[in-house]
Order: sequence, then C-alpha cells, then structure tokens
Amino acid sequence: MKALALNCTLKASPERSNTQVLADIVLGALEREGVETNTIRVVDHDVRPGVSSDEGNGDEWPAIRAEVLSAEILIMAVPTWVGKPSSVAQRVIERMDALLSETDEAGRPVAYNRVAGVVVTGNEDGAHHVISEVGGSLSDFGFTIPGQAWTYWNKGPGPGPSYLDTDEGHDWSRSTGEAAASNLLAVARALAANPMPPPPG
Amino acid sequence: MKALALNCTLKASPERSNTQVLADIVLGALEREGVETNTIRVVDHDVRPGVSSDEGNGDEWPAIRAEVLSAEILIMAVPTWVGKPSSVAQRVIERMDALLSETDEAGRPVAYNRVAGVVVTGNEDGAHHVISEVGGSLSDFGFTIPGQAWTYWNKGPGPGPSYLDTDEGHDWSRSTGEAAASNLLAVARALAANPMPPPPG
Amino acid sequence: MKALALNCTLKASPERSNTQVLADIVLGALEREGVETNTIRVVDHDVRPGVSSDEGNGDEWPAIRAEVLSAEILIMAVPTWVGKPSSVAQRVIERMDALLSETDEAGRPVAYNRVAGVVVTGNEDGAHHVISEVGGSLSDFGFTIPGQAWTYWNKGPGPGPSYLDTDEGHDWSRSTGEAAASNLLAVARALAANPMPPPPG
Amino acid sequence: MKALALNCTLKASPERSNTQVLADIVLGALEREGVETNTIRVVDHDVRPGVSSDEGNGDEWPAIRAEVLSAEILIMAVPTWVGKPSSVAQRVIERMDALLSETDEAGRPVAYNRVAGVVVTGNEDGAHHVISEVGGSLSDFGFTIPGQAWTYWNKGPGPGPSYLDTDEGHDWSRSTGEAAASNLLAVARALAANPMPPPPG
Repeated sequence: MKALALNCTLKASPERSNTQVLADIVLGALEREGVETNTIRVVDHDVRPGVSSDEGNGDEWPAIRAEVLSAEILIMAVPTWVGKPSSVAQRVIERMDALLSETDEAGRPVAYNRVAGVVVTGNEDGAHHVISEVGGSLSDFGFTIPGQAWTYWNKGPGPGPSYLDTDEGHDWSRSTGEAAASNLLAVARALAANPMPPPPG
Repeated sequence: MKALALNCTLKASPERSNTQVLADIVLGALEREGVETNTIRVVDHDVRPGVSSDEGNGDEWPAIRAEVLSAEILIMAVPTWVGKPSSVAQRVIERMDALLSETDEAGRPVAYNRVAGVVVTGNEDGAHHVISEVGGSLSDFGFTIPGQAWTYWNKGPGPGPSYLDTDEGHDWSRSTGEAAASNLLAVARALAANPMPPPPG
Repeated sequence: MKALALNCTLKASPERSNTQVLADIVLGALEREGVETNTIRVVDHDVRPGVSSDEGNGDEWPAIRAEVLSAEILIMAVPTWVGKPSSVAQRVIERMDALLSETDEAGRPVAYNRVAGVVVTGNEDGAHHVISEVGGSLSDFGFTIPGQAWTYWNKGPGPGPSYLDTDEGHDWSRSTGEAAASNLLAVARALAANPMPPPPG
Repeated sequence: MKALALNCTLKASPERSNTQVLADIVLGALEREGVETNTIRVVDHDVRPGVSSDEGNGDEWPAIRAEVLSAEILIMAVPTWVGKPSSVAQRVIERMDALLSETDEAGRPVAYNRVAGVVVTGNEDGAHHVISEVGGSLSDFGFTIPGQAWTYWNKGPGPGPSYLDTDEGHDWSRSTGEAAASNLLAVARALAANPMPPPPG
C-alpha cells in the first residue's frame, strides 16, 4: 500500500516547512504499518493554473497527478493563510477537478477506493475550516474520507508562533495524527478488500 | 443494514418538505438493495440547545441519538438558508458533539464504522458549502464519508423556485443521489467486513 | 446612537456566558463614546423556526426584530460549536432573511445604513470561519461591515479551557474588541451623515 | 474617486473571461457616476507565493499592490472552482495579508477608509460561499464591506454552461451588480467625508 502527501506550503525548498513536520507524524505512523510513503512539495513544481489534467507549456501537474493515482492514501498537508487553505492547496484542488471525468477500466471515477486525510498548520485560527474545505473537495472527486482522518496545530487567539517555534499543543497534534494514520489505513484496507462498484446508470 | 435520514427542514409536519422528497430518492435506492430505512423530521421534536447527550427538561434528542446509533448509514438532509446549513442541522451537529467522548466496548468512538452522506435542497446557491460544512462535522465525530456520497438541487442565480415547483435539473439530482446511495452502501459494507480498530495510544 | 448585541449562546440565563463577557468589552467601549447599548440573550426567547418576520404561535422574534431595527449598530455575539456558528446564531440569520424584502419609506432595504460586527468565543479553533459566515450573511441583508469590526477568543489546538477559565490571550481579544467598537461607531456615524441611497432601478 | 477590479480568473489573456464580463457591469455603473476604473487580470502577472509585500525574484505583486492602494473602491472578481475562490484569488488574499501591518501617516492600517465588493461567476453552485470567504478576508485587512456589495451568476444543479453561453439569469445578475456599484460608491463617499480614525490604544 502507498501513501502520498502533497505539501501545500507557500515556501519553496529548502526553507523549513512547519506543515511538513506535522505531516511527517502521520507518514511515520503509516510507515510503521508497512505503508510506502512519498511527499511532494508542490510549490517546488510549476503547476499551471487551469482545470485540465495537462495545461501544457511545461506544466508539471501531470507527473504529480500520476503520483496521486499510484497511491491508495492521499494526505493533503495545508497551511492556513487568512483562515483559508493556501493558494497552493486550491491550485491542487483545481487541477484534481479533471479526475471527475476520468474512469478506470470498470467505469469508476479514478479516485474511488482511495482515501484522503488532511493535515493543517497555522499560527492562527482556521484549521477546522481548512479541513472541511479540503475534505469536501476531495470527497467531491470520489475520495473516501475516513472518520477522524486529520490533525492540526495552531495557536489562538490572534497571530502567534509557528508550530516549530513552541512545544505547546504538540502532544495533542501528534496523538490526533497517529489516530488519523490508523483510520486512513483501516479504511484503505477495507476498500481494497471490498471495493466500491461503478456508480449505477 | 439500517439507514437513518435526519430531515433538517425548518417546516414542521405536515407541511411539504422539498428536502424529504430528494432524500427519498437516496433512501429508495438503498431500500432496493435491502437496506431498512427510517426518517426523522427533527423539527417535529423538541431538541434542546446544548452539547450533551441529554439536556433534560423533556429533551427529545436522546431518542433521536438512539436511532442514529442503530443505523450504519446516516443521511443528513439539509435545506440551505442564507447559503448555510439550516439551524436545525446545526442543532443536530451540536448534539452529536457528545458522540466524540462516547466509545464502544472496544474503545472506539461510537461513530466509527458508520458512514454518512448529505442531501441538500435550496431555492438558491449554497449546496456545496452545506455539503462541506455538514460532512466536515460528521467526519470530526468519526463517521466515514464515502466518495461522492451526496446530491443536491437548487437554482441559480438569485432566488428562485423550490425543488417541487419545477422539473428542471431533477434528472441530475436523481442520478447523483442514486450514485450516493451506491457509494454509501459499498463503504458501509466494506467497513462491516473489515472494521476500523480503536485509535492507538 | 444605539447598539444592540444579540448573544447567540446555547446557554439559557442565568448560566454564565463567555460570549457575553467578550461582547461586553465592545459594548463598554461604545458606551464610553455615548452609545446607548442593549443585549438580548436569544436562547431565553422562543424564536420559532422559519424565514418570515412572524411565525405566529407565540413566536418571540417580532420583538427582537424591532430591537434590531431600532439600533444603528448590531453586534452578533456567537459561540463556536464544531467549528461553526451556533444553531441559535443561524436561527437569527434565518429570521433576518425576511429583512431582505422590507424597505423603508425611501425604498431602501431596512438594513441599509446600519453596521454590524461579530464577537466570537470558543474553546477551540473556528473563529475566523464564524466571522466570515455571520458577516457574509449580514452583508447579504444590507448591513455594512466596517473594516476590522470583530474580535474573538479561543484556544488551540484541540479542545481546551473556555474564555473565563484562563487569562491567556485576553489582552489581544480586548484591544481587538476596542478597535472593533471604534470602527463600528466611525462607519455608523459616516453613514448617518451621508446615507446610502435606495438601490437603482 | 478610483475603483480597481482584480480579475482572479485562471485564464490568461487573451482568453475570454466570464468573470470580467460580469465585473464590467459593476465597473460600468461606477463610471457612469464619474468614478475612474481600472482592471488587472492577475494571472497575466507573476505574483509569487508568499505573504510579504515583495517576494523578490521578479515578483509582480508590488505593482498590483500600488494600484490597490491608489483606489478607494476594490472589486474582487472571482470565479468559483470546486465551490471555492480560485487559487488566483487566494494568492491575492495571501499577498494582501501584509497590508495588516502597514499604516498610513495617521497610524491607520492602509486598507481603512476603502470599500470592497465581490463579483463571482461559475458554472456551478458556490457563489455565496465565495462572497463570504473573500469578503471576510478583505474585512480582516480593514476594508469596509458595504451592504449588498456583490453580484454573481451561476447555474444549478450540477455542472452547466458558463455565463456567456446562455442568457438565463443575466437580468438578476445585472441589476444586483448595479445595486452593488451604488452601495460601494455611497459608502466610499461617506467614508471620504467622515474617515475612520486610527484604532485606539
């Protein structure tokens, strides 16, 4: 079984990404269960604006899309900016829109029988909203969202330190992330054993 | 296998509920697969404000909660008002908050291994937002949200007729609802065959 | 000039409301500028489900609606539950929907030339989302939302203490609330001096 | 008085933008009142990811930022993708985050005494959510959001034609857009006559 994390930070490598560090807790828990994991830091790639699977002109989405489709477990790792998913996360969601009209050999949308979770960091309020926004879109595309398949870290109220600037709240974010990993894996395995059929009609 | 629809219309019985008619498409498709179904029109009951499982004083939530826990499939049927889930839907979500701290004999949150979908009607824009808001909360509680487990109907732009006042768009809402039923049932069965374990730690 | 706060807590009087205490900071700053203030704790009244200005059957919304229309400044004071505005806040918004079709003698929607702000408390993440949701609806009805006309308090990540259980973060919430009062009053006065005309056409 | 529209379409020039055509209704109504108007199609410029006012490396945001600050009226023109503001709109919002810490000579955040409205198009449901999300962020930065300062066009339910592919609903979108122009201008003039003071403290 494979898991892919798409890190939607605004910061290009090699700058330190708080979001990556929290995503790594979920990925680490999956690895301990034998899952093969991979991370793509999306901002390091030229993902063109648009809603097709290949926008041409050096568009680097097609390679990322291939990685998404190679994994049974997708983790969207998303920083909060102004209370919302980062522009990089929304760019990924726009590009995934094309998945809706792509089907496998059995006539199923290609995201069926895949599960997705969300990891959120921010130095301010907004995590639950980001989780609902991102999870809602992934569910639109056909991904199944297991119960409690997310974790987050932030500080409140008002602006504050980033995740790696403090130890406060880390325990809760870690145990919640480990539960998310457990739930993602359990539902992915349940669907592998008993896959969803093509939609009727 | 059992399915429960919670109809969160603002209109008390016996007034006609557009939301019920669309929910019935999903319930009907489930029944054709042998699922036992039930609907509760929440506004007909005195569900008290609060976030515990029993607020006393004639609170009718405990009986509804028992029905929620008797079903493997939950359908939240929600009208859109001012672009948001109805106050009745939010009341239900607030009362479900207590599910978070209740566990079964194996130590699992009681919503684990249950699936949930969302049915939305409105005479105006807002369905996708309602689906993300309601789905996000149910996922918080531990319900698994299968891929494409929703349908909706509305009209745009601006105010317009209600679902039962026109035939426009009904075909899409019906076929989308039948797909939702298929996906809800498939994931419920997959989880019944291979249940999620208790969270680690 | 008059200001009205609608406290949308789930807790009936005389139970202590965290939301009221934070709202009082904004109201106090307005009073020091000579504004007459009033608060209604909505849950103490029988506000019936519906979207008309009077749902009959002992509906207590009409009296609250009269208070809303007597004030130039409206403050929605809203607790966060499951990351969203409380069911009581959404009930108020549904009932305000009828304001859209009511006009003054000059043909203006009755909410024109009134300003509104939002005060949010919660023991968990979600304040910015609540502010956007509530502010967006009030703007729909015709209320003007001054820049930075909100304050909030919460704790993150995960569940935590309520506002009155800790001193942490109170300074930021207070100074932000005092700025909100200043901005609400300034824009209310600007509109009183130069009112918006009726919409064209 | 000056108005600036930021068109946040995903489509680079010279491709036809539905969003521009609807924004032009609002801009045209402002011009008839003597307002000087300008539009920037953001995707034609290299706006770098980040949250500062200048991300270097050929970042074209600083020139756009100067235009934002030269106008008393801002119009965010935003297509709906997967029910949410476009990634280009979120990029603009992220870059505007730096406005929060910039003040004028009187100590006011630079967005004070400016007004903002939102124009939304989409071939599917989601406009009210986009309006709340974008308006909520602009209000965070200090822009005042006049009552009913938005218009939108979409179709429902499910996918459908774009704005320019049909005449359906255009009248409502136009008259709503003309009302938005009237309200934006009235509040901008009211604030010009009686400006908001610096925040206290």
